Amino acid sequence: MSAGAAYADWIAVDWGTSRLRVWAMAADGTIRAEAASDDGMGGLARDGFEPALLKLVAPWLGSVPVPVVACGMVGSRQGWAEVPYRAVPCAPGALQPVPVATQDGRIRLFIMPGVSQAKPADVMRGEETQIAGFLVEEPGFDGILCLPGTHTKWVHISAGEIVSFQTFLTGELFRLISEESVLRHGIADEGFDQARFESAVADALSRPERLAQRLFAIRAEGVLQGLTPEAARSQLSGELIGAELAAARPYWLGQEVVVAGAPALAALYGDALQAQGVSARVLDAGPLTRIGLGRAYTTISETTA
Amino acid sequence: MSAGAAYADWIAVDWGTSRLRVWAMAADGTIRAEAASDDGMGGLARDGFEPALLKLVAPWLGSVPVPVVACGMVGSRQGWAEVPYRAVPCAPGALQPVPVATQDGRIRLFIMPGVSQAKPADVMRGEETQIAGFLVEEPGFDGILCLPGTHTKWVHISAGEIVSFQTFLTGELFRLISEESVLRHGIADEGFDQARFESAVADALSRPERLAQRLFAIRAEGVLQGLTPEAARSQLSGELIGAELAAARPYWLGQEVVVAGAPALAALYGDALQAQGVSARVLDAGPLTRIGLGRAYTTISETTA
Repeated sequence: MSAGAAYADWIAVDWGTSRLRVWAMAADGTIRAEAASDDGMGGLARDGFEPALLKLVAPWLGSVPVPVVACGMVGSRQGWAEVPYRAVPCAPGALQPVPVATQDGRIRLFIMPGVSQAKPADVMRGEETQIAGFLVEEPGFDGILCLPGTHTKWVHISAGEIVSFQTFLTGELFRLISEESVLRHGIADEGFDQARFESAVADALSRPERLAQRLFAIRAEGVLQGLTPEAARSQLSGELIGAELAAARPYWLGQEVVVAGAPALAALYGDALQAQGVSARVLDAGPLTRIGLGRAYTTISETTA
Repeated sequence: MSAGAAYADWIAVDWGTSRLRVWAMAADGTIRAEAASDDGMGGLARDGFEPALLKLVAPWLGSVPVPVVACGMVGSRQGWAEVPYRAVPCAPGALQPVPVATQDGRIRLFIMPGVSQAKPADVMRGEETQIAGFLVEEPGFDGILCLPGTHTKWVHISAGEIVSFQTFLTGELFRLISEESVLRHGIADEGFDQARFESAVADALSRPERLAQRLFAIRAEGVLQGLTPEAARSQLSGELIGAELAAARPYWLGQEVVVAGAPALAALYGDALQAQGVSARVLDAGPLTRIGLGRAYTTISETTA
């Protein structure tokens, strides 16, 4: 590396509500370095974004401006700069990241747009880039991509486009109920009872409207019948995922389904679908955002070359 | 009042998770004084209960021990002393409060048992005393009593007994989602849009399984379509109460229903039921606990006279 040259040819940034992840990328797509911090969008004021980014990427910069491509909540109204949504149907691989001014001349920032849907009203920020990454790997995919997480997305993909999608608050409800509600007294932080998970999924699918009642029953079974904290955790997870599957049925019934997420969570969705007779493929979503950001970087290179 | 005589003939105590309320009662049932504090069960260690109570009631004590009758979470495993549940069917008006030892000889403490149900597993602590109070007022009631709140109870009452009941986490979900989830950005603390509430109730009743999806739609409609924070609050309330009504349908369909709660919340339940063709009577639950404690006090007087 000559003096003054940057260590990164470009920088990939996944900036969500609670986490910031960055990768120093070479032009050929290899990863030279990576870093992460808890400086998520949720904890930053507008003038806090640039310092939070520089804290991680400064060692990778040089005298020539380095392109930085970011996705996620960093582009929301509460983010660094609001980047408008693109409406469905749209091709995530063709989304153009939007240039955003910075104080520091060593970086040239671009933020990915999110994707919106008018009816039913829905939005995503960050997942469009994961989907773009998935389509780099499987350009001909036609079917349903499920992205489980804090706000789980079910996405109908055809001919390289997002046709429609639907978001469920399942992950956030799990966290709030297990950590903040009266149920927290009887729910383990870890441990899992697979049989109880699967029976809760089946229960919830058959009587999805009983969710709020069955949640309290977890508490009552702990008090009266000695339900273990591990079993309670599995029961809660199964009730919530089962209720989600009941509502998302038009998405998965008779479709080709891929679940891409953190491995343990994605496996749960895969198991729950399997019990409904759907053989979903389960992928680790880890690399997808970075690959999608790489796809977006090529669109910058093309337009600014 | 002669020197050394207590100001209260007995003391009524409603001790929940977050609040402590006390009344200085005369033998003839009139209220001589009342007080309250935020020393709920949730914030107290086992040895903190007696000082928290004395802080409020000390001025009402004298040289002769005063009976104190308490109900609510004070009798739970995390409370002052655990008082076992009585199983349904049981007559709330015949529940015997259980004597509990105190350090201070100026009080003679009794705590009400809660009520449990084996299948579906369910528990109550505090509501049994509200129900006892309700039955003092309406001893011949045969039908359904709905007690909306943090943990809403639907109770089937016949011949002076609790036949069965079911608890819903609705109030707690409303608080967690409106204050702690991603929806908090777009939900008002106050204000209400009655038409939107009623349409959300109807929506939720017709497709109750879609709850987790519709919750996120509230966020998306705020971002995309300018849903006002007041409308979002009403929508969330309607979605949750509608989903509860869908699950509680066997309780209210074709039954005589009384809703007893805080007036604004009870009115919402009354409106939601009215839209389903059920003319529920709506009562202020305010006095019921105290009246139920009065009923329990008479059972002590009878047994210890």
